[in-house]
Amino acid sequence: MNSLPEVSRRGFLQFGAAAAAFSTGGGLVAPAGAEEPGAGGTDTWRGLKVGIATYTFSKLSLDVTIQDVRRVGVKYVSIKESHLPLKSTAEERKAVVQKFRDAGITPLSCGVVSMSDSETEIRNAFEYARDAAIPTIVCKPTRQSLSLLDKLVQEFDIRLAIHNHGPEDKVWPSPLDVWDAIQPFDKRIGLCIDVGHTARCGVDPAESIRKCGSRLYDLHLKDISKKEGKSLPVEVGRGVLDVRKVLETLIAIKYPYHVGLEYEKDMTDPLPGVAESIGYVHGVLATLPG
Amino acid sequence: MNSLPEVSRRGFLQFGAAAAAFSTGGGLVAPAGAEEPGAGGTDTWRGLKVGIATYTFSKLSLDVTIQDVRRVGVKYVSIKESHLPLKSTAEERKAVVQKFRDAGITPLSCGVVSMSDSETEIRNAFEYARDAAIPTIVCKPTRQSLSLLDKLVQEFDIRLAIHNHGPEDKVWPSPLDVWDAIQPFDKRIGLCIDVGHTARCGVDPAESIRKCGSRLYDLHLKDISKKEGKSLPVEVGRGVLDVRKVLETLIAIKYPYHVGLEYEKDMTDPLPGVAESIGYVHGVLATLPG
Repeated sequence: MNSLPEVSRRGFLQFGAAAAAFSTGGGLVAPAGAEEPGAGGTDTWRGLKVGIATYTFSKLSLDVTIQDVRRVGVKYVSIKESHLPLKSTAEERKAVVQKFRDAGITPLSCGVVSMSDSETEIRNAFEYARDAAIPTIVCKPTRQSLSLLDKLVQEFDIRLAIHNHGPEDKVWPSPLDVWDAIQPFDKRIGLCIDVGHTARCGVDPAESIRKCGSRLYDLHLKDISKKEGKSLPVEVGRGVLDVRKVLETLIAIKYPYHVGLEYEKDMTDPLPGVAESIGYVHGVLATLPG
Repeated sequence: MNSLPEVSRRGFLQFGAAAAAFSTGGGLVAPAGAEEPGAGGTDTWRGLKVGIATYTFSKLSLDVTIQDVRRVGVKYVSIKESHLPLKSTAEERKAVVQKFRDAGITPLSCGVVSMSDSETEIRNAFEYARDAAIPTIVCKPTRQSLSLLDKLVQEFDIRLAIHNHGPEDKVWPSPLDVWDAIQPFDKRIGLCIDVGHTARCGVDPAESIRKCGSRLYDLHLKDISKKEGKSLPVEVGRGVLDVRKVLETLIAIKYPYHVGLEYEKDMTDPLPGVAESIGYVHGVLATLPG
């Protein structure tokens, strides 16, 4: 998830060169919890902030990504470094986020950001989020760095959402592993539950949402072909996950953060599968009782 | 709806030239009612035969159309003449249908076919459906030809589904106009309710489905920006139609025929909107109680 395709990097750099030419807007970090509230009542999204983790579009340029996110009618993203490199200037960070905002799209988080134990590297990730006015960093830190992260979430007032990556992840396979590890630390250290990787651990995604809801700061929504063995990503609704139960649980706990579709099939041509997945989620939300 | 884009015609003719080279399969007309039954029980489509009216792809070639229908995971189509011209040979008709079938897609109808009073022209439409083994012709006939059509549905054992086209249609604005006119005639003369054009007439689509269900042989599913004035086509779920009620009613009457998405936005690049619309319908169906 951390490779930076050359074409995207070129796309970014081309944009970066032009970025100084237009307004970059305010650069203040939005404090944790400062997102606009979800619409209630007649909102067919049921108050959930459904958006897209731009890792989905990591083989495509920033401009195409913004166009495709707009096309499927969602208003939120989590920005992957393919669209905003971790090694970027403060001006570039502001410019990219402003470009999303100008298109009516609010970046609610960035990531997944892999973090070593290096304080310089970790501090750069916080500066990156601060410069971009992004309130949450979805990340994959080491266990050893949790004490340092505890200091930095306080210093920057930026949330962390530790992402679980399934049975192959030696550090954070399941959200329950994250949950246990973060208990001693500041509440701004929380989780991004990846429902696919969670199910592959034999953990029920909806139950983990309910258990960890008080520290759930992002979510990767997806569907998978099966829970065991060689599992492939599929369009949401075509796989084995109980997407309805996940969405019902998010509504039940009044989850206020990003519900980010992460679609990992058809990475060179993701738009149709993204559109089908977003349509499915919208159809489920519009039909759920309550 | 009846223009034949030059590019599509060329695409067809290129294909037509190659058609003789591969097997065209059986050419017998499937008798009315001979489609495979919808799957029940665990079928997330709730037994409905959701497919696509290929008018949606009328600016695209046959090959791209088949590829895009496969991509969104549906198994049924209604073939528009852009993908199989009414002026075609029996071999070409068989070849096009076989190409759909080879891709796992069953053509359940053709149309919308505009019909004058000319018996030669009308008879050609029946021969077209017979040659292609298509059991239902979605059509726009004249009122004067109903007696002739009554003879031909018996001679060919092929159903007609008269399509209503909204307030601007001087002959068949609403499905209720069709319903009244067809009462004296053979039951194989029925309707294709277009839910968008129906709503624009001030008629509730779900109520018209319930009233006309016994002769409902195709359905055009869509969504629209508003019911009055300048109404634009939109992705299903983004507009004003009560799609849930339409689908609930189709399930309630155990509707066994084609539920054809007709997506008329983005005609040169329809796939993302088609995918979102199919995803939405799938999400609603998967979530409806019962």
